[in-house]
Amino acid sequence: MQIKITLPDQSVREFPKGSTALDVAKSISEGLARNVLAARINGEVRDLTLPIDEDAQLTLLTWNDAEGKSTMWHSSAHLMAEALEHFYPGVKFWVGPAVQNGFYYDVDFGGQAFSADDLKKIEDKMAELAKQANPYERKLMSKDEAIRYFTEKGDQYKLDLLGNLQDGSITFYTQGSFTDLCRGPHIPHTGYIKAIKLTNVAGAYWKNDASNPMLTRIYGITFPKKSELDEYLAMLEEARKRDHRKIGKEMEIFTFDDDVGPGLPLWLPNGGVLIEELERLAKKTEAVAGYKRVRTPHLAKESMYLTSGHLPYYEDSMYPAMEFDGEKYYLKAMNCPHHHKIFKELNPSYRDLPIRLAEYGTCYRYEQSGELFGLMRVRSLQMNDAHIYCTREQFAEEFNAVNDMYLKYFRIFGIEKYVMRFSTHEPSKLGQKYVNNPELWKQTEDMVRQVLIDSKIPYVEVPDEGAFYGPKIDVQVWSAIGREFTLATNQVDFAVPARFGLSFRNAKNEMETPICIHRAPLGTHERFIGFLIEHFAGNFPLWLAPEQVAVLPISDKFNGYAKKVLRQLINSDIRGLVDDRDEKIGKKIRDAEVKKIPYMLIVGEKEEQESCVSVRQHGKGDQGSLSIQAFCDKLNKEVDELLSV
Amino acid sequence: MQIKITLPDQSVREFPKGSTALDVAKSISEGLARNVLAARINGEVRDLTLPIDEDAQLTLLTWNDAEGKSTMWHSSAHLMAEALEHFYPGVKFWVGPAVQNGFYYDVDFGGQAFSADDLKKIEDKMAELAKQANPYERKLMSKDEAIRYFTEKGDQYKLDLLGNLQDGSITFYTQGSFTDLCRGPHIPHTGYIKAIKLTNVAGAYWKNDASNPMLTRIYGITFPKKSELDEYLAMLEEARKRDHRKIGKEMEIFTFDDDVGPGLPLWLPNGGVLIEELERLAKKTEAVAGYKRVRTPHLAKESMYLTSGHLPYYEDSMYPAMEFDGEKYYLKAMNCPHHHKIFKELNPSYRDLPIRLAEYGTCYRYEQSGELFGLMRVRSLQMNDAHIYCTREQFAEEFNAVNDMYLKYFRIFGIEKYVMRFSTHEPSKLGQKYVNNPELWKQTEDMVRQVLIDSKIPYVEVPDEGAFYGPKIDVQVWSAIGREFTLATNQVDFAVPARFGLSFRNAKNEMETPICIHRAPLGTHERFIGFLIEHFAGNFPLWLAPEQVAVLPISDKFNGYAKKVLRQLINSDIRGLVDDRDEKIGKKIRDAEVKKIPYMLIVGEKEEQESCVSVRQHGKGDQGSLSIQAFCDKLNKEVDELLSV
Repeated sequence: MQIKITLPDQSVREFPKGSTALDVAKSISEGLARNVLAARINGEVRDLTLPIDEDAQLTLLTWNDAEGKSTMWHSSAHLMAEALEHFYPGVKFWVGPAVQNGFYYDVDFGGQAFSADDLKKIEDKMAELAKQANPYERKLMSKDEAIRYFTEKGDQYKLDLLGNLQDGSITFYTQGSFTDLCRGPHIPHTGYIKAIKLTNVAGAYWKNDASNPMLTRIYGITFPKKSELDEYLAMLEEARKRDHRKIGKEMEIFTFDDDVGPGLPLWLPNGGVLIEELERLAKKTEAVAGYKRVRTPHLAKESMYLTSGHLPYYEDSMYPAMEFDGEKYYLKAMNCPHHHKIFKELNPSYRDLPIRLAEYGTCYRYEQSGELFGLMRVRSLQMNDAHIYCTREQFAEEFNAVNDMYLKYFRIFGIEKYVMRFSTHEPSKLGQKYVNNPELWKQTEDMVRQVLIDSKIPYVEVPDEGAFYGPKIDVQVWSAIGREFTLATNQVDFAVPARFGLSFRNAKNEMETPICIHRAPLGTHERFIGFLIEHFAGNFPLWLAPEQVAVLPISDKFNGYAKKVLRQLINSDIRGLVDDRDEKIGKKIRDAEVKKIPYMLIVGEKEEQESCVSVRQHGKGDQGSLSIQAFCDKLNKEVDELLSV
Repeated sequence: MQIKITLPDQSVREFPKGSTALDVAKSISEGLARNVLAARINGEVRDLTLPIDEDAQLTLLTWNDAEGKSTMWHSSAHLMAEALEHFYPGVKFWVGPAVQNGFYYDVDFGGQAFSADDLKKIEDKMAELAKQANPYERKLMSKDEAIRYFTEKGDQYKLDLLGNLQDGSITFYTQGSFTDLCRGPHIPHTGYIKAIKLTNVAGAYWKNDASNPMLTRIYGITFPKKSELDEYLAMLEEARKRDHRKIGKEMEIFTFDDDVGPGLPLWLPNGGVLIEELERLAKKTEAVAGYKRVRTPHLAKESMYLTSGHLPYYEDSMYPAMEFDGEKYYLKAMNCPHHHKIFKELNPSYRDLPIRLAEYGTCYRYEQSGELFGLMRVRSLQMNDAHIYCTREQFAEEFNAVNDMYLKYFRIFGIEKYVMRFSTHEPSKLGQKYVNNPELWKQTEDMVRQVLIDSKIPYVEVPDEGAFYGPKIDVQVWSAIGREFTLATNQVDFAVPARFGLSFRNAKNEMETPICIHRAPLGTHERFIGFLIEHFAGNFPLWLAPEQVAVLPISDKFNGYAKKVLRQLINSDIRGLVDDRDEKIGKKIRDAEVKKIPYMLIVGEKEEQESCVSVRQHGKGDQGSLSIQAFCDKLNKEVDELLSV
């Protein structure tokens, strides 16, 4: 009997019943078959070697897919466990998941000594076992049988896990001499793992509860090629040098304070420059694109968040309520409900649409203090937010314009690698995880997909990760050193406007509910500036540099003229300083170069007499002499060029 | 025996013991004696006719002084009570204070009917009694005697008031047939009251408590000249037309929403333009003046506000705490503590000073819901805030520069009448109301006074109204229709920086505490925009106008060209719209004139062929034809000129 396999390009192929995803891959090409790590079958990620018994939607997952990576990393955790059992008989294992970069396993050594010094011998053993290309073999087991197995082994951890599992769905995986209770999926065999690095050892309480015993958590990462591991290690080393917390402190960009609170950055004057310049860019870009700016308070009544649905579903991520006047007020975790209220007040007709409301609004979200990390995980988020209200007919053009704005920003910031992660709904979960409007889901997803295809923006489609009220696009970008960041999220919302009773009078004189696009191309100041610090290693382009010009008088005698020059710079919207220390000019130049100030203006007798400046560019040396005004014009022209790519 | 009277100019005159302030006034000039209403004697406002028995500091108060006005208004409340007693025998009175514009008295008519229709006859009676020039006679009474008096009268209200008074300090005032328990002071006689207007009747719960009986509150205002009343009524009428709530709604500048909460304005797109333009002006002005911009979160831990002293003293004006992670967090009611933390992090030396930290920070203050009023009394305040940290030597120059900034803004906004209200400390209250550092108080007040005198800015000095930590300057301005607004407050702070442990390394290599100047020339967006709406009657100058240009195609055929013109305007930072309705050009022009859009650009066949526009100015008519770029340049030049006065 034959089954029908539908591939992502919607082509359909027939295979004998019981064929595997690996068979499908081989039928396409041998090269693909070598690179494929797992498969998404009808929305679920499964082993490549699992027989398929009915018609299915199938996506082959490689190292380029997040799920391909996580499958390999989870299999690597099993491989590490096998190596650990070899050296430490009787060792017990709790859980060993894949994480963002690699995997870990929580281990109970039962009193046997283990330290970071032991990682190397585990790595070597893993490499030896990997070369054996031992298959990961899956076996369904009854709950009784599983309990007997771990009781005999005396493994209280796995017995604890078993307690939560349903009989009939319990699987074991074995590779080489190691067997584990595991849902899977796994790669076909250990030979796929070509490069291994164990990166860290740390303590972790069992079940994350401080009253439980401490287990040993061992972190690692693996790759399908040796060269990728080398690149990864080099990137980590560079990322350490470019750590935004380190550069942020050295360059006086931001700080935290105990009396203010964790996760609440204070932006120092140099950070203030970055923020002001980013906002200036965003405001100009958005004005040209027809956005209108609004301002809304940082809190609202409980009733607002009951309407929006943030309460009770999102309550854990919100700050606790303030009660007064017999009402509960909450700090806003998102700007959309306030913008919806403004749309409603404007009471527009179809002639007024699209309405694009923009605000660099600060939102407050409660993150567990253990989750906070520099500017990357914070509790205050100032967002490059806007909401576009449009008709269905206008949607494609509006959505396309949003993407164009992203591309413009990518050019300005020199972001060369990016991908849009397009998350859609899963039809079987309509009415639960997703608002129950199958037609609108299909329509909107089709529109989004078409715009992505037409605009040739790189994108991947991820089923079953849409927002409750519509499809979602996460924008992933890579910094100059190749580290991945999720900067921004766009959402298409065809449900919440109705909850707020938003409508416009259409051309037929009927009331119609608009579609809302949530978009924030520059993300939040916190995360975006954290990214930029790493991306530029603090060496900001001219338009962003906290100090653009250092005026360097060659002696005290010319401090007055230097200050006059600085005044003219400031009047021309240029940021600068005068180095009037009692130091030799050579030392002043060296210090300005160390501070990476883009331009140095050296002034002495000749310059004062001729009302000019001797220009020196950071890293490029002498650029000749210019009148003060000519220098201002040159610099402003350079900034304009950087921003109009 | 002679006593020494020291006048505000520090001149000292001798008078016989027992002389009155009126005697002092007469000794200066008969004209002054006719105009003086009360006197400040050793810091307390007293009757003009009170004998002075010892050496004293004396200030004569006229209609030009707030205390002169309030004395006359409080006396007018007594006059109104006399007239009410005439018509309504047995009527009882609760309290009758002077307020910002006039006075009121809370009255219990004991069941006798009273309505707004009765105000006229009361006014007339008051005028008749005023002409009699009956003196206000003061009489000290023992508590027993006072209780007996009101018990016989059956007046439970005054008996209630008496309960809280100390024997030996109880005074009664009588004018004509009316006697009242009253602390005073009062004007010498009713003849000073030349013009009377009773403005309103309202209900008011006794002691402001809804479980008490409702009294009748009658409002009025009086003047020393008939012409001043006429001006006041004309101003009120004009203010009604210019009511910022009315124009704010018509022009779609701001709104309130029940789900957001009272006192929390939502700024609509047109309000967004006003805010963005004000911030652009402030940021440019502050950059040129050497300010650095920072950004700080909208909340902080309890410990911050214990250090600053906001807790517990200011707690009633703050939003209630949010508790999490075992800590209390409060929304900030002021930006200073956050800025102090930034100063500390910058760890400056004297070479880095002055440090001027600016932020358009939003603060949250809890106002009783009954106190909220449009944009004038709100709960969210976005403030043109900055804190200048400087040495004592730098203080005069810095403070002077702040005043210059005020004057520049007054010119830009066409504010012609303004006065700085300089509030100083009262030496007898050092250690209680004022931080106990007499030397620094003297030094700072002398410095501030000297700058005010040297800069020739109009100012009045108000003793005993300084802030806890230093002298204060309230900036009062008058709108185009002559209504007074308090827009901004400057404070000199020599105490709180020490509480935060702020210091800099001085030239002698010692740690020294900086002085901090708090300043906010443009006040809050809320109050300043409220003021501007009245000041300009919504007819904003070109640079502030929500829409600067309306492009008017003479027929549908030229809608495309009109949009092209608009794009070029927007690219030149000009705000505009295209009126592409299917209407005659005459109608489009009339509608744009009604909307007060400063420029109209009429485009048809000739304009499209020649890539130009026909320019029409609001209220001025046709201005001839210009190329699109020439028009953009002309408009931007006009804006620059408006802002560089």
